[in-house]
Amino acid sequence: MNTLKLRHVAIDTHKENVAYLHRECTVYRTEGFQALSKIEIHKAENGSPIIAVLNVVDDESITAPGELGLCEQAFRQMGVQEGTAVRVTHAKPPLSLQAVHRKIAGERLEFDDYLAISRDIVANRYSKIEMAAFLVACAETGMEREEVLYLTRSMIETGERLEWGEPLVADKHCVGGIPGNRTTMLVVPIVAAHGMLIPKTSSRAITSPAGTADTMEVLARVQLDMQRLHDIARSERACLVWGGTARLAPLDDILIAVERPLSLDSAGQMTASILSKKISAGSTHLLIDIPVGPTAKVRSSLTAMRLRKLFEYVGDRLGLHLEVMLTDGRQPVGRGIGPVLETRDVMQVLNNRPDAPADLREKSLQLAGRILEFDPDVRGGQGYVIARDILESGRALRKMESIIEAQGKNPDPPQLGHLQYQVLSPRSGVVSSIDNLQMARIARLAGAPMDKGAGVDLHKKVGNPVEKGEPLYTIYAEFPADFQFAKEAVQQENGYHIGAHS
Amino acid sequence: MNTLKLRHVAIDTHKENVAYLHRECTVYRTEGFQALSKIEIHKAENGSPIIAVLNVVDDESITAPGELGLCEQAFRQMGVQEGTAVRVTHAKPPLSLQAVHRKIAGERLEFDDYLAISRDIVANRYSKIEMAAFLVACAETGMEREEVLYLTRSMIETGERLEWGEPLVADKHCVGGIPGNRTTMLVVPIVAAHGMLIPKTSSRAITSPAGTADTMEVLARVQLDMQRLHDIARSERACLVWGGTARLAPLDDILIAVERPLSLDSAGQMTASILSKKISAGSTHLLIDIPVGPTAKVRSSLTAMRLRKLFEYVGDRLGLHLEVMLTDGRQPVGRGIGPVLETRDVMQVLNNRPDAPADLREKSLQLAGRILEFDPDVRGGQGYVIARDILESGRALRKMESIIEAQGKNPDPPQLGHLQYQVLSPRSGVVSSIDNLQMARIARLAGAPMDKGAGVDLHKKVGNPVEKGEPLYTIYAEFPADFQFAKEAVQQENGYHIGAHS
Repeated sequence: MNTLKLRHVAIDTHKENVAYLHRECTVYRTEGFQALSKIEIHKAENGSPIIAVLNVVDDESITAPGELGLCEQAFRQMGVQEGTAVRVTHAKPPLSLQAVHRKIAGERLEFDDYLAISRDIVANRYSKIEMAAFLVACAETGMEREEVLYLTRSMIETGERLEWGEPLVADKHCVGGIPGNRTTMLVVPIVAAHGMLIPKTSSRAITSPAGTADTMEVLARVQLDMQRLHDIARSERACLVWGGTARLAPLDDILIAVERPLSLDSAGQMTASILSKKISAGSTHLLIDIPVGPTAKVRSSLTAMRLRKLFEYVGDRLGLHLEVMLTDGRQPVGRGIGPVLETRDVMQVLNNRPDAPADLREKSLQLAGRILEFDPDVRGGQGYVIARDILESGRALRKMESIIEAQGKNPDPPQLGHLQYQVLSPRSGVVSSIDNLQMARIARLAGAPMDKGAGVDLHKKVGNPVEKGEPLYTIYAEFPADFQFAKEAVQQENGYHIGAHS
Repeated sequence: MNTLKLRHVAIDTHKENVAYLHRECTVYRTEGFQALSKIEIHKAENGSPIIAVLNVVDDESITAPGELGLCEQAFRQMGVQEGTAVRVTHAKPPLSLQAVHRKIAGERLEFDDYLAISRDIVANRYSKIEMAAFLVACAETGMEREEVLYLTRSMIETGERLEWGEPLVADKHCVGGIPGNRTTMLVVPIVAAHGMLIPKTSSRAITSPAGTADTMEVLARVQLDMQRLHDIARSERACLVWGGTARLAPLDDILIAVERPLSLDSAGQMTASILSKKISAGSTHLLIDIPVGPTAKVRSSLTAMRLRKLFEYVGDRLGLHLEVMLTDGRQPVGRGIGPVLETRDVMQVLNNRPDAPADLREKSLQLAGRILEFDPDVRGGQGYVIARDILESGRALRKMESIIEAQGKNPDPPQLGHLQYQVLSPRSGVVSSIDNLQMARIARLAGAPMDKGAGVDLHKKVGNPVEKGEPLYTIYAEFPADFQFAKEAVQQENGYHIGAHS
């Protein structure tokens, strides 16, 4: 009765369980299922059923009558072989959806509500539209700060947690939006050279032209298993790896998959997302960098201040020692945008080269200095000097080389893209502003971060005088199509404003 | 450059354009697409591109590298043959999404905003999660009644409109939730026998055990093309057909596909949905039936009154002559629940059989009477008497037979399900309530409306005395599995409350 043969359908539906039934399948017809309705799929032997959203198929080579197709994620969750007999029934909506409806109606939810929602989402019981409903409901009435705390705790409780067995585990995080802002690759070796533990897990770029993981990969392996990560962090006091392998706060990854296409980016979600990941990673002391500027993610100091208070409120209640720095986000940091170019900037600073970008160096020292002051033995205000000393003495460079060696040096480092195009100044004057968003867009169109050698190299920064016809920046690309797209974007808007000589 | 061969993927993704790219496809890798991100698909020749949400495929038999797969709806919209060369680019988010974000932030939107959103959704430019965001944003802060008007107008403007060329085109609508409430099949022949034009297009059941289209189909064809529909309406002054063939307010159908799985059912959406469909169908005079009762869709007279005011506000501004009747929704209407059983009830009333269900007859006469009073020549208060006269004289029956003949009599009418089960009263007393939701659920589990002969036949109604062991109702089913499900549901809860003899 209602028995179907399981079939693997190799479609990646990205964080949603989808099941496929043929339109002529008896079970589909007699059960009165609706497309998009949710079904429960039971194994013949006992065990809890999985839930999936139904799509209807008219092609027997995908799913034939008598078969039940499951997308990749749902098939994995089911955990049995193709051909296994399964039974399907109408799914009851997850109980926690009632809390979502209360949130839609404007009610404030309690910790138990957030935990129940989190558990159901992590168990793949929500469809994408149900997740969207939850996110919009939270974005719209906004969440009380207590609710942001509840959501953060729920994200932590539904994932794994790393333990370092030390009382001080430092970390830093930037809320993002500034191209070229590769301070992490300087802060980590400086802090580790001082002896402080800073096991840094970073993301790859999602919408930006380079993430720290993408950039570090120019120099060394960044995908390491948990055991190796622990060993390196213990011996080097640091690592610079991709954080995707651990199941830290998996709810956050799932919600981001829906937030991103919706361009939802509320302060509450951002706070819960960042702090849950950091606490799950075992951090005890965290410095958050909030760049403020007209084309940054945070555009006014009022917004930055509100965000700071929210970070502090949630961090304090979760026992995290948290500091926030508001930084200058009016233009890109350093010169290079894109993995290879940003690596070059970082190595120039570590090598104390006179032509190293001064702003990247200075900002990294400021951040590292604040982190060093987490050390009870460092006197308030002395962090910056210690950081500068570590950098200038070459100890930071040696630490970085040692980390690279430990993670596995890249034997064949990628080169700069061979297609190059100089963007010239249309007039003489002084650079009065550089648009972060447009520069990031041009670098992405040129191929970053997928092509590590693609990107943009800035020759002028805000305040620099420039002559008409002098190069403002150079675009690097690997593929002619990307190169063309990037040049077309420049023609529309080159991202620079040139003011009159003052 | 970036050229892919179009491929038809026979998956019905239900109102969402989905595109499939193989994970190893060069275009997927170099463009840096994200799963769930939206892409634009361009034909080689000019013409506007279509937009689709991206899914990643790992099976070449579904979509191979170098191919672009499109789900059924997107393939149809593309309108070119398999194998055609197409180009894909990143899609810019539809401009109207900015208005959705303003609505999420709690702003009130203007008519132009609603129109832009409607146009983009009807052109399949929204993903399901974007539609969910729009619906939740409207549900949460709620819509001002001006906004409900704007949404209704936008729904009408983005679809087709029927024209009847007469000053009075009558219609009726019930907001739903009451099983067995098949008054339309009585009201239409009565009103048409009076000479008033009432070209009735109905829906099939979505979540209920029978819609008017499902039930009428027991007697006659209901899927007619537009020309035939017009001819019949002109000659008979009426028709009783399925409304799905016309593209009336298509936005409504799309939004319902997302609302239903989310169980969103706000007064604003309901009002816009009903009135846009009716005005698009060319109706000038509309009677709306709002049943009120503890297990009906509308549970209190306060809610019913608010809904009435909203209908009146929007209807008046759109030039619709609209009346609302609040009716008794405390139990199912008539005896049968399910297409064959409800048809039997209707025919008993039309035949003036003494055993015809009195409540169905009385309610239909009340509704028909109010519609007849739309006729300027009918004196206020006389509608009911005229309706009763038309019914008792047999003119309503002859009109119904004539409509059936015109639409095409069903040569092989379905029979009652051969599996039968009597549910007996567990005690003696008086029926004090019948649960609409549970009776609808039992009838659906038994197979209605898919199996037209399946359903429930009530032998006792509220107020009837009953002895212990006497049958309360009979379940009819076609298939043993359905029969079993329905019986199990009865064991949990039979839907009847039996009180003490008064």
